[in-house]
Amino acid sequence: MTPKLRFADFRVGQKFRSPGTVTVTVADIKEFAHKFDPQPFHLDDEAADAGPFKGLAASGWHTAAMTMRLIVEGGLPIAGGLIGAGIDELRWQQAVRPGDVLAVECEVLEVIESQSRPGQGRLRVAMRTLLPDGTMVQSLVATLVVRG
Amino acid sequence: MTPKLRFADFRVGQKFRSPGTVTVTVADIKEFAHKFDPQPFHLDDEAADAGPFKGLAASGWHTAAMTMRLIVEGGLPIAGGLIGAGIDELRWQQAVRPGDVLAVECEVLEVIESQSRPGQGRLRVAMRTLLPDGTMVQSLVATLVVRG
Repeated sequence: MTPKLRFADFRVGQKFRSPGTVTVTVADIKEFAHKFDPQPFHLDDEAADAGPFKGLAASGWHTAAMTMRLIVEGGLPIAGGLIGAGIDELRWQQAVRPGDVLAVECEVLEVIESQSRPGQGRLRVAMRTLLPDGTMVQSLVATLVVRG
Repeated sequence: MTPKLRFADFRVGQKFRSPGTVTVTVADIKEFAHKFDPQPFHLDDEAADAGPFKGLAASGWHTAAMTMRLIVEGGLPIAGGLIGAGIDELRWQQAVRPGDVLAVECEVLEVIESQSRPGQGRLRVAMRTLLPDGTMVQSLVATLVVRG
């Protein structure tokens, strides 16, 4: 277990990497799409081959959700949990395919102490979802609420 | 069925509303959290009561995924499908609770024609996820790729 960090422990430039990975499967892609993004190119192999991604690809929201799992499971060890105030600059650089193995790297961009509650505040953190060779498939900047 | 629109049909200021709604359930909140955001305050009633949301609340990524479903099911009728290039300014204004009924309103903010491929391009669209009384629970700005 990575020890969990409190607000005072964070510094601009700190980097963290998820201890685990997620391996994306055809079944997972289709199950997520069936529930939340039921477009033919996320659901059906033939439609996917003819579609914009030239093959089956995960919904971008599925990639975001898998990223969250990696973060919660130690990718960013914040005491008190991961509470998002908002997300900016969410981008999908490359389609996520069956068999892809995802990990997440986090980098602290800003540490913003609360004026009304010293010792706690917000972090702005870049989160990059990566394949084993370092190819980035998703990036975002999260604003997180961190207690003291 | 709402007729589907092509790039040339879009204008700044157009508004669309999802024809359907999603009713959030305890089971849905816990199932999503179990898979993608396994934090106690999304999984367990007692931990949720003691947690930051003072009661069970959906993962923000679950709200985003439910929003996508409403958009795909007619909330924004784009011929060729909904292909996101990126998301900005994703905010969660209020915790989403069991029993909440969500709908989505879209507003076209920008219509950006491709320089290399006239007749197609990108849209920037504000998407607001709303309760029946108009309370906003999530907002974002999506950049979508639209074919001609």
